[in-house]
Amino acid sequence: MIGIFDSGVGGMTVAKAVEQYLPDYPLIYFGDIAKAPYGSKSPQTIIDYSLKNSEFLIKKGAKVIIIACNSAASVATEKLRSTFDIPILEVIEPAVAAAVENSSKGKIGVIGTRATIRSDIYKKLITEKMSSAKVTSMACPLLVPLVEEGWLNKRETKMILRRYLHPMRDKQLETLILGCTHYPILKELIQYRIGKKVTLIDSSIEVAKTLKEYLTNNPALAKELCATKLKSQYYVSDITETVKQTAQRIFNRPQPLTLI
Amino acid sequence: MIGIFDSGVGGMTVAKAVEQYLPDYPLIYFGDIAKAPYGSKSPQTIIDYSLKNSEFLIKKGAKVIIIACNSAASVATEKLRSTFDIPILEVIEPAVAAAVENSSKGKIGVIGTRATIRSDIYKKLITEKMSSAKVTSMACPLLVPLVEEGWLNKRETKMILRRYLHPMRDKQLETLILGCTHYPILKELIQYRIGKKVTLIDSSIEVAKTLKEYLTNNPALAKELCATKLKSQYYVSDITETVKQTAQRIFNRPQPLTLI
Repeated sequence: MIGIFDSGVGGMTVAKAVEQYLPDYPLIYFGDIAKAPYGSKSPQTIIDYSLKNSEFLIKKGAKVIIIACNSAASVATEKLRSTFDIPILEVIEPAVAAAVENSSKGKIGVIGTRATIRSDIYKKLITEKMSSAKVTSMACPLLVPLVEEGWLNKRETKMILRRYLHPMRDKQLETLILGCTHYPILKELIQYRIGKKVTLIDSSIEVAKTLKEYLTNNPALAKELCATKLKSQYYVSDITETVKQTAQRIFNRPQPLTLI
Repeated sequence: MIGIFDSGVGGMTVAKAVEQYLPDYPLIYFGDIAKAPYGSKSPQTIIDYSLKNSEFLIKKGAKVIIIACNSAASVATEKLRSTFDIPILEVIEPAVAAAVENSSKGKIGVIGTRATIRSDIYKKLITEKMSSAKVTSMACPLLVPLVEEGWLNKRETKMILRRYLHPMRDKQLETLILGCTHYPILKELIQYRIGKKVTLIDSSIEVAKTLKEYLTNNPALAKELCATKLKSQYYVSDITETVKQTAQRIFNRPQPLTLI
């Protein structure tokens, strides 16, 4: 099984991308909705939660884990890799690789939660790959609640996006990394506000592509992941009507969620 | 000690009101920021968290507890009262009493989080006291993140408030209950949007008054609460810069917070 966890529903954009790129592989999803969101919390708290989520997925049969939450990926990846002996993929490195590849002048923007932007992880990884890169970052903490409320086409959402993105418009960005798995849901609005010349990097799609490539290079693991007869499972630590609706919006189908 | 808990920082408006009405009584505050917000979560999850928070406060010496979170008060009060043998006060009943007292025609509005409004507790308690009352309720889920971001005077906040409050404007309300302990911070904006004829009921102040009256009627408890030589203590389950800033905004002073 491919294990995927997130603080809540945002990581379902990753699950959807994995379904799309690797349709024959069953996956097991855990959304830690009882403690969501992670993006406004401290690194230590996010690390504790990430350890527990990974233990749960491994116990349920995950042989590879995707950290489908930028806030968790930004502060907990190292700890998870040193704690567990299965491959740990996450949403940041693939997005960084795609951004560098698509930015010949190195003009890269990053938007994310407070935890992600504060960690400075994108800037660090981008400049490791491309020392001349000029990274512009912006924390956009209100976007997650707006998406979770389903305010996808409201005037206030557009205004808040403009407020966040306006300072980035004169940076002549080549690419903008959507550094939170909720943001692909706002992709069109973001593209409109930042300008059509800027290439958006969707970390959900990039991590799905990376996993596909990883499995091509590791056929034994690929075989093992498919060996189970179990079907994909979606677990959450809490559930409300809003959660069900957001899940349906992301998957474009009613998605049964098991409360644990 | 007077114990007070909330999902995060909103309940600090209650702590501040208690300091104001009962300056000689030490209090012990717990903000469950690692799991905040409660307002978007399910009743069972909120009950579990409330039980844990109360156990913590009692262990630390609380002899009376105030549930300073409307979401928790709306679903967990009964369970806490049947579990613990100390007085459990909460923010809803005092606000309901004040609203009924100030609404001769029974035209009462309530705003709150999804969990609070969905529970229908305000409507239930108001009509128990005044069967002719006409209660208009509105969930305002984006107000908590806006307050926690400190967007107190931004145009978007005013627009979002207008969107929430507009449907209530033609109800000829006499009173509007601020059914979330974050909302007193937006009191002036809310008053402007709902109209100056509407009396706002601040549950933080009402519960502080209620506790003061309760202690006047229970002098033995009042004496016991003052007997400790401990000073007021503020605990949180997580801490970030934003949390420190919101605490400072509420108390109008730097407020040391102990992480546990």
